[in-house]
Amino acid sequence: MRWQPNDLVLILSPEGKRFLVRIGPKKFSTHHGEINLEALTQISPGDVIYTHKNIPFITVKPTLYDLIFRIKRITQIIYPKELGYILIRLGIKPGSRVIECGSGSGALTLALAWWVRPNGRVYSYEKEERFLKVCLENLNYVGLKEWVELKHKNIGNGFDEKNVDAIFLDVKTPWMYFHHAWEALKGGCVLGILVPTTNQITESLKFLEKNLFKDIEIIEILLRRYKTVAERLRPEDRMVAHTGYLIFARKVNDK
Amino acid sequence: MRWQPNDLVLILSPEGKRFLVRIGPKKFSTHHGEINLEALTQISPGDVIYTHKNIPFITVKPTLYDLIFRIKRITQIIYPKELGYILIRLGIKPGSRVIECGSGSGALTLALAWWVRPNGRVYSYEKEERFLKVCLENLNYVGLKEWVELKHKNIGNGFDEKNVDAIFLDVKTPWMYFHHAWEALKGGCVLGILVPTTNQITESLKFLEKNLFKDIEIIEILLRRYKTVAERLRPEDRMVAHTGYLIFARKVNDK
Amino acid sequence: MRWQPNDLVLILSPEGKRFLVRIGPKKFSTHHGEINLEALTQISPGDVIYTHKNIPFITVKPTLYDLIFRIKRITQIIYPKELGYILIRLGIKPGSRVIECGSGSGALTLALAWWVRPNGRVYSYEKEERFLKVCLENLNYVGLKEWVELKHKNIGNGFDEKNVDAIFLDVKTPWMYFHHAWEALKGGCVLGILVPTTNQITESLKFLEKNLFKDIEIIEILLRRYKTVAERLRPEDRMVAHTGYLIFARKVNDK
Amino acid sequence: MRWQPNDLVLILSPEGKRFLVRIGPKKFSTHHGEINLEALTQISPGDVIYTHKNIPFITVKPTLYDLIFRIKRITQIIYPKELGYILIRLGIKPGSRVIECGSGSGALTLALAWWVRPNGRVYSYEKEERFLKVCLENLNYVGLKEWVELKHKNIGNGFDEKNVDAIFLDVKTPWMYFHHAWEALKGGCVLGILVPTTNQITESLKFLEKNLFKDIEIIEILLRRYKTVAERLRPEDRMVAHTGYLIFARKVNDK
Repeated sequence: MRWQPNDLVLILSPEGKRFLVRIGPKKFSTHHGEINLEALTQISPGDVIYTHKNIPFITVKPTLYDLIFRIKRITQIIYPKELGYILIRLGIKPGSRVIECGSGSGALTLALAWWVRPNGRVYSYEKEERFLKVCLENLNYVGLKEWVELKHKNIGNGFDEKNVDAIFLDVKTPWMYFHHAWEALKGGCVLGILVPTTNQITESLKFLEKNLFKDIEIIEILLRRYKTVAERLRPEDRMVAHTGYLIFARKVNDK
Repeated sequence: MRWQPNDLVLILSPEGKRFLVRIGPKKFSTHHGEINLEALTQISPGDVIYTHKNIPFITVKPTLYDLIFRIKRITQIIYPKELGYILIRLGIKPGSRVIECGSGSGALTLALAWWVRPNGRVYSYEKEERFLKVCLENLNYVGLKEWVELKHKNIGNGFDEKNVDAIFLDVKTPWMYFHHAWEALKGGCVLGILVPTTNQITESLKFLEKNLFKDIEIIEILLRRYKTVAERLRPEDRMVAHTGYLIFARKVNDK
Repeated sequence: MRWQPNDLVLILSPEGKRFLVRIGPKKFSTHHGEINLEALTQISPGDVIYTHKNIPFITVKPTLYDLIFRIKRITQIIYPKELGYILIRLGIKPGSRVIECGSGSGALTLALAWWVRPNGRVYSYEKEERFLKVCLENLNYVGLKEWVELKHKNIGNGFDEKNVDAIFLDVKTPWMYFHHAWEALKGGCVLGILVPTTNQITESLKFLEKNLFKDIEIIEILLRRYKTVAERLRPEDRMVAHTGYLIFARKVNDK
Repeated sequence: MRWQPNDLVLILSPEGKRFLVRIGPKKFSTHHGEINLEALTQISPGDVIYTHKNIPFITVKPTLYDLIFRIKRITQIIYPKELGYILIRLGIKPGSRVIECGSGSGALTLALAWWVRPNGRVYSYEKEERFLKVCLENLNYVGLKEWVELKHKNIGNGFDEKNVDAIFLDVKTPWMYFHHAWEALKGGCVLGILVPTTNQITESLKFLEKNLFKDIEIIEILLRRYKTVAERLRPEDRMVAHTGYLIFARKVNDK
């Protein structure tokens, strides 16, 4: 089936540069010349489009992975290497009701929305208005706003929801909100936490068990990329060494 | 809400041992004494149940993560650190139609089924009958069979499906099936590959571009776990150093 | 040149098992039969010796690397992956005068003695008599005692030496001895520290600058081993994920 | 003891920038003003020197570690994380006679010379004249030339030396020289190899055993650096992901 007006398209240059564009009556400028975006409706996903300088670009449907790397960023974002693990570890599935705080630029928000569809819901708290604005913009751009309730709110007084299936905290002092998380979670469900420093892990550990969270796991995930040359296979020279530590724990009901 | 008859329950011992049980009129034996599984219907997820020796076990709803580590294994399985990345990278979402080969013990099959719900479909090919049997057993046990079509079939003659949203190959000589994968995939969609050796990466790279696959990525993912002691925070002494390398590439339409 | 009576010999079984033996009038029992150690003097390093069951074992001169893995262990030892870096980072060279505390089983003691030869000296402090005994035994066994002064002493009152070229602390609360280390070190020289936990790094950092140590470095070293099969090249399945964190800092003279 | 004329001095800026200078009748320009190098003879290692803008710089004796990072580079160099392991693994000690090829910029040459002192010898082969020139310059600058014999020579016809204690190959096609290495090595001694790609490991493995090398080890070493902030302890954001793979094997005498 052909590309449709208003579709989001990922276009890849011959050297592998990636651009996310929306089909409409305009031109898109690349370092290899202009692409007539309306002409995309004459071809299909996977087809090649040519710039006015006759340079071929590949057109593909963006996956969640592509979207996350193309959204507008105003904060450090959570990367796919962590996102995938978080989703599995939190037990997210179609229909899940899940809380996150803070929204930031919305990378995790997107991922959660992507997978609670068609009938789940993401409650995303953010106290900084400018972050919330960017997050909203990103959700609208990729078409996932429908599954997200953005909340411009400090969580110092707790969450509005009860009986949610999972909670994820990406805030500076997560331990200050563990009792609120406990109140909002279903029994046995998982709380996830991202912190960049070991001091924050230590502090979190001190407070988790006090707040009836058990089955604690602390991990970090490293991703190593290889150069794609068959005859000279080797890792890339440099890699991301740290984005953050992930902590997971489960709510145990009071006794 | 209380546990229901026939529910799958993950029970955790005081030392963190994990058992997956199904509620029914029987007893479950642990190293701390017997648990009356029928009594679970008197309590709720997150509650504690006591063995006949009065030792408390926590009862929780298993997430995808829990299920994958509890299923019956007859082959090396793909672990959550890779599963999450694969799902995001393939662009799996509710409604996706996806092919995998081989089924193995079904860890990836479960993950795919979990996330294509409610209206997607997984086509899982496996030539070894005994693997297929275990995979089916696992799918039935966790209740995800409905979304999976198991196929006892060698893929040397190609796949039965056309226009699928993603394909994942976990076979010894993936390069022998790239042309079949190309035929079955939608334009621009992603082929994922898992191989344990660098020789297989080299071989795959040689054949990928020949078969009109581009936008190639090769990675490996390392997960490092930390001991959960606040005052003596440190990584665990040993870790898994290798499960496999992941390769991803996109179908480009013939020109 | 042939093996000599009393030589230390590393013998390798066909499967790669490693044994450290000393040539003398006795037999050595292996899982493949007995080796007559006196017969070694009829062959040379690199030659093969046969057990009474006619199984070939390779005989080689042990390097520092081999010795460290064969000494008697009563404590966790520092491994070659860290040892090499420590030696370079501390600036050890023939003739260096260096302090270490504690001696433990003597892995670092051996390495230091190995490289301060022929005219340097290692001052090794240890408060536990049973560790000191093992360390002494190991040094004597490998023939490096001559360059080491073992001191059965708590370092709470400081070190006996002045103007040493380097100090290495492998103790629980290194920060309690930074002022002593400062007193004993030459100006500008390097203090090295090994600690297993992040809490100890944090504590050390708090005290280092207070004690006029600058140019601080904190690292960890990971070693990944590969299976030696040409056609199926891949990392080993599991690896050591943590031995300890290394901290280095330099003494700055008071002003 | 005070700094002496002609001493090599490592000077550290308040932000940790590192400069290697030689004391003499000149000024050294920094981003914080000029340092009168002759004035260094009025102070001692570990003391602070002030620029004409009154900014304090720490003065320390460079260790091997410091020298390696300050020498002139015309090629990719081997870093301390690998150097230390190589030295231990090859069994280098005071008095060793060792061959390396190629010299490159001389990082390994320096390290070998540093540790074969006072009576050992390094035979360093290099076919590129411009590399040899830089290596010589570096050795002279740090004062280690005395222990090194630089050889402007292709090793296609073998090595000039016999009975050496160790050999290290850092060349593109090491397998072409295994028989020469075997000829030059003492029985049971270690051959070390550095290769950047997995294809080169595979090729080396194929040829090692054919040439009577056994006890093969293949590793890679990863170093992760932490930020030195006590209250916000965390790894640095990025790290070196790959310099090369190390292979070690031992010469077994013909039978």
